[in-house]
Amino acid sequence: MGKALNEKGQVYRNRNAWKVFSGIIKEMKPSKIFIITDENTHTHCLDYLFEKEKFKITPEIIIIPEGEIHKNISTCVKVWETLSEKGADRNSLIINLGGGVVTDLGGFVASTFKRGLPFINIPTSLLGMVDASVGGKNGVDLGPIKNQIGVINLPEMVLIDTEFLNTLPKEHITSGLAEMLKHGIIYSKEYWERVKNIDVCNKLEFEVLIWDSIEIKKEIVALDPSEKKLRKTLNYGHTLGHAIESYFLESPDKKILLHGEAVAAGIVLATFISMETYGFSKQSLRDISKTIFKYFPKQTFSKKDIEAIIKLLVFDKKNRNGQVLFVLMEDIGQHRTDCIVSNELIYSAFDYYKNF
Amino acid sequence: MGKALNEKGQVYRNRNAWKVFSGIIKEMKPSKIFIITDENTHTHCLDYLFEKEKFKITPEIIIIPEGEIHKNISTCVKVWETLSEKGADRNSLIINLGGGVVTDLGGFVASTFKRGLPFINIPTSLLGMVDASVGGKNGVDLGPIKNQIGVINLPEMVLIDTEFLNTLPKEHITSGLAEMLKHGIIYSKEYWERVKNIDVCNKLEFEVLIWDSIEIKKEIVALDPSEKKLRKTLNYGHTLGHAIESYFLESPDKKILLHGEAVAAGIVLATFISMETYGFSKQSLRDISKTIFKYFPKQTFSKKDIEAIIKLLVFDKKNRNGQVLFVLMEDIGQHRTDCIVSNELIYSAFDYYKNF
Repeated sequence: MGKALNEKGQVYRNRNAWKVFSGIIKEMKPSKIFIITDENTHTHCLDYLFEKEKFKITPEIIIIPEGEIHKNISTCVKVWETLSEKGADRNSLIINLGGGVVTDLGGFVASTFKRGLPFINIPTSLLGMVDASVGGKNGVDLGPIKNQIGVINLPEMVLIDTEFLNTLPKEHITSGLAEMLKHGIIYSKEYWERVKNIDVCNKLEFEVLIWDSIEIKKEIVALDPSEKKLRKTLNYGHTLGHAIESYFLESPDKKILLHGEAVAAGIVLATFISMETYGFSKQSLRDISKTIFKYFPKQTFSKKDIEAIIKLLVFDKKNRNGQVLFVLMEDIGQHRTDCIVSNELIYSAFDYYKNF
Repeated sequence: MGKALNEKGQVYRNRNAWKVFSGIIKEMKPSKIFIITDENTHTHCLDYLFEKEKFKITPEIIIIPEGEIHKNISTCVKVWETLSEKGADRNSLIINLGGGVVTDLGGFVASTFKRGLPFINIPTSLLGMVDASVGGKNGVDLGPIKNQIGVINLPEMVLIDTEFLNTLPKEHITSGLAEMLKHGIIYSKEYWERVKNIDVCNKLEFEVLIWDSIEIKKEIVALDPSEKKLRKTLNYGHTLGHAIESYFLESPDKKILLHGEAVAAGIVLATFISMETYGFSKQSLRDISKTIFKYFPKQTFSKKDIEAIIKLLVFDKKNRNGQVLFVLMEDIGQHRTDCIVSNELIYSAFDYYKNF
């Protein structure tokens, strides 16, 4: 297997992916292999991985607790300590097997242990495949604030095998769908039309749509790796989406939302604001709202909730000089970045969301 | 001020440095400025900084507790939280004003907050100037294990002003001297001869030697940025030095050593091992040992201490497959990397150290 086998950070799918995976391990000859999983992927995904790859050295398994609430520095410290105790060195390989929490945290842990060990991401959730897999972002939350601590660093490869999706509960499939719908809105009417009518039971069609979504994200990241302009569009629906997710996470009386559930609400809100600000068509707004509510239950926001969510906006990573900056759309596929939005308009957007 | 004003990671000295510093701030127009200090540099160095630079926006000052023992993740969490509370965004600038602890920790905090804020290092200790200033390494300790968590990331600039050295107690000057002596041993007889007879009271001569030391480190890092071979020589004396430092740090009955004090012992030990293994000349070994003991007090190591220190060697970041790898010298300026050393020989080296 030659050096040209893999280019860092590339995404490989299904059968070909496992060949590249074996090739990398063969070539790298890691001193040790560590597989980071959470409780769920340890139960549901590890056997399949061992079926696909007969490791020559027995990997050490590290299990982290499941859920966004554990995507924090104290979980990192535990994993760093385990790596240290088990003798991980710079020639050890880390494999992150799991959803966004595992790949985000595992990527950060690998990027910072002894100033960086090589790692491979194997996303097992739809969200992990279509969103977290591309672009090298990793990190953990600081208190309720999402992804405040992290770096950008590419894995050796990203392995996509849609077989893993069979292990997911239904709401985790729809959670990933939110990012696919977002890719349609920010990128092209053609993809939007296809993805809004997605039939997840039609495996072949679903796979094609997943792969197209990854290609869209890859293209956007390649055109603007340092997130000056175009890449910011990937944040569509996330400014309010992240704040909603953080707020529900820290509120004892709220159910913890999946990332996609929060982003779905964020998309409806941002699209309403886009209509009010840049004349985004009413008909497309209705179309998008209808599609979102077909897949995602409506959340309830009191006036107090909305106030608190607006307060959380100041922690958004795209802010500048304390100013909250939104991505908005003029039309499907036509974006505007760095938009300032009044609180009044945000309240109106929540009104629209409630009454739709 | 044009874009060519500064190249990332460059080191600037004295008067010129302050001009570049002002220029960067003028050009960057940071939304906020944060100065990270420890208790000492807050008292002794901050006024001088404010004398040299009249900031247009008032910087926020973050004070971390003084000493290696606080160079850990829990101090990072406090600084990250402060940055978050005070509204740091990606357009904020972090200035690390202090010794190696402040620049190592501050550089790591800046590199990981919101996936990376720009930062400037102003080393105020001799060690910080001649060692930590070049190469972009940053990080914190994990328990007693030095620098286990970190990344490589360049600051916008490194500002060297030797005026800061006047604020240092004598033992901190000698601590930095250990790295300068090391630069002589690994790089050239000519520099070794000059630095071994250093007169720190002769300000002009001292400054020239400091600058030459920085140039040596810069040259080595530029020739081997990814630490495949040559850059490993900068680790001379550090394999045992780090283990000694860690051991004294975690032993309640031992005084905490300054980094240079531990490295000084490590240099004598590594040079004895070099003589036994690669025929390093006995005369040069005597010369090096005499020079070290002129500046550094002899430490006492019991058999139990040495055993524990050898156990700590497994955590060295340069290890591979559980094998501890030393840098050794055939002659001053003639290195060998990735050398395996028996425990027996390490015991003999401690014997030599004790009896010299």
